Amino acid sequence: MSEQRTEIAELGEFGLIDHLTKNFEIHNASTILSVGDDAAVIDHYGKQTVVTTDLLIEGIHFDLMYTPMKHLGYKAVMVNLSDVYAMNATPTQITISIGISNRFSLEALDDFYEGVYIACEKHGVDLVGGDTSSSNKGFIVSVTAIGEVAPDKFVKRSTAQTGDLICVSGDLGAAFLGLTLMEREKKIYLENPKVQPDLENESYVVGRLLKPEARKDIIEFFEQNSIVPTAMMDVSDGISSEVLHLCKQSNLGCRLYEEKIPISDESRKAAYKFGLDPTVCALNGGEDYELIFTLKQEDHDKITLNEEISVIGYMTEITEGCKLLTKGGNSFDITAQGWNAITQ
Amino acid sequence: MSEQRTEIAELGEFGLIDHLTKNFEIHNASTILSVGDDAAVIDHYGKQTVVTTDLLIEGIHFDLMYTPMKHLGYKAVMVNLSDVYAMNATPTQITISIGISNRFSLEALDDFYEGVYIACEKHGVDLVGGDTSSSNKGFIVSVTAIGEVAPDKFVKRSTAQTGDLICVSGDLGAAFLGLTLMEREKKIYLENPKVQPDLENESYVVGRLLKPEARKDIIEFFEQNSIVPTAMMDVSDGISSEVLHLCKQSNLGCRLYEEKIPISDESRKAAYKFGLDPTVCALNGGEDYELIFTLKQEDHDKITLNEEISVIGYMTEITEGCKLLTKGGNSFDITAQGWNAITQ
Repeated sequence: MSEQRTEIAELGEFGLIDHLTKNFEIHNASTILSVGDDAAVIDHYGKQTVVTTDLLIEGIHFDLMYTPMKHLGYKAVMVNLSDVYAMNATPTQITISIGISNRFSLEALDDFYEGVYIACEKHGVDLVGGDTSSSNKGFIVSVTAIGEVAPDKFVKRSTAQTGDLICVSGDLGAAFLGLTLMEREKKIYLENPKVQPDLENESYVVGRLLKPEARKDIIEFFEQNSIVPTAMMDVSDGISSEVLHLCKQSNLGCRLYEEKIPISDESRKAAYKFGLDPTVCALNGGEDYELIFTLKQEDHDKITLNEEISVIGYMTEITEGCKLLTKGGNSFDITAQGWNAITQ
Repeated sequence: MSEQRTEIAELGEFGLIDHLTKNFEIHNASTILSVGDDAAVIDHYGKQTVVTTDLLIEGIHFDLMYTPMKHLGYKAVMVNLSDVYAMNATPTQITISIGISNRFSLEALDDFYEGVYIACEKHGVDLVGGDTSSSNKGFIVSVTAIGEVAPDKFVKRSTAQTGDLICVSGDLGAAFLGLTLMEREKKIYLENPKVQPDLENESYVVGRLLKPEARKDIIEFFEQNSIVPTAMMDVSDGISSEVLHLCKQSNLGCRLYEEKIPISDESRKAAYKFGLDPTVCALNGGEDYELIFTLKQEDHDKITLNEEISVIGYMTEITEGCKLLTKGGNSFDITAQGWNAITQ
């Protein structure tokens, strides 16, 4: 944390915006006009524009007791970029609006924008506008991300076909386990502020919670290997919920295999420590910001060399329902509330 | 107000989004994909995209004690469309994110979205996405508007020239007087809830506060008459503040004439009733959502027939400062805090 404290009121709104955005450079030729006017101007020649937005509210979406402002800035951008990648598009611009109570110093906001800056740099995205206002209480962040995609290359949720493979990037459940850990440490701290947090060996799950990475690499891999998924979305609420969306919107059913669900060793260890089933955490955990997508079976060979992609099942006719086949050979209905059978 | 009360939790997030957006139709061929996926897709062929965003927080930007939800929805959209018009662009799409505490019923949200719907219909704008989440307290609205403009037709704030005429649409100060009135009525009501509000003869100033109209007509007038302003912005904080922005960003000074500032009869009457100077209200009032723009002198004849446009002054060299010439022949420095001399 920064030690100096500058009151935000000292700068005024426009001084504040200038201050917060002065280090942001333009990366995209399509960014014609950026921060500082009524609106940003973006140019497109034969490309299609993708737009997505998210609102993050302190106490609902994040807890500043264990979320550094810099990480929050980074994550607020990543969450939106993840939605753009989930369209098979490339993010190009973002706008950020924040509401802040007088609890926050300029240094805290600087930390937030440093996280925003790092996220923008990493993904070649331009910050082109926003709005800064007071809030009565707490910190509010609204991010809108804009991206571009060649006409008809964008991938919807509703276009999966029977027999398509269901694939997921990375591994699942870690962010939820990071959250469980941080909530436990918060409780211990509130009971006894002298106890230092015990996060040793937990850096993976904590990092997955506080610093998610939108899967730009997967979209680039698709491009390089001429892969166009038949349907795709990002994993923000857990794959149970997401796969049900794909099924519902595509009017299909599915089969998932428990043993195929990618879970890291660190997540398994953390789950056992908390007495949780790793599979339940992966199915229902949320906030992983991986990509779940469906692929024609004939494209299977194109992905086998990418260790970041796991095939976890396939799409079926709607009449077959949405089922999870366990390692023990049982079949359960997938529900958005999770695989209740396991948690018993 | 609606009498039925449905708890929002009954629908779930996606049920809620479906419910709230089911009546919205697509107006723009450029809207390829709308609500219901990770992001919206917008198509552009040789047009430039304009983006703007605003965050509105209960207790900071609006008071639900005298702001009907339907008006709030309408205004939240208008505020953003006004920014798009201020670029000389045509709004085409919006996204809306809301954060709501459990104080709000589904019927209240329906009222809000009805206002959003009316605003979208009136301006031919498509609602293409958003985010719906809980808040701990109060109502939070974040709107992002996207528009399009032919390449190089957009109008910035920084491109006014010495000698350009300063023009403003409509009349000024009424929204501030509407706010002053509503705050007075609120105070009376809180002291004695049996007293009914006395809003007779005040419908103009109240309407200007609760139902501002983004000036689509002015942009259309420019197009029809081959007018391109040299600089433009919308009037959200009062023209004192806005004209200083135009001067600062264009590196110029200005002269405004008090007698030229357009103020409605209703506003004058309301100002006198409250013991306020109408000119001060017009200069510093804010929330009028009119357009202030600069024009080459040779374009003067093109605007004389439009009664909705007033010439209020002209741009000068920066060395001449930013001055207001009063009816009495005095000259005052314009400040963002207003024309203090008058309020003495």
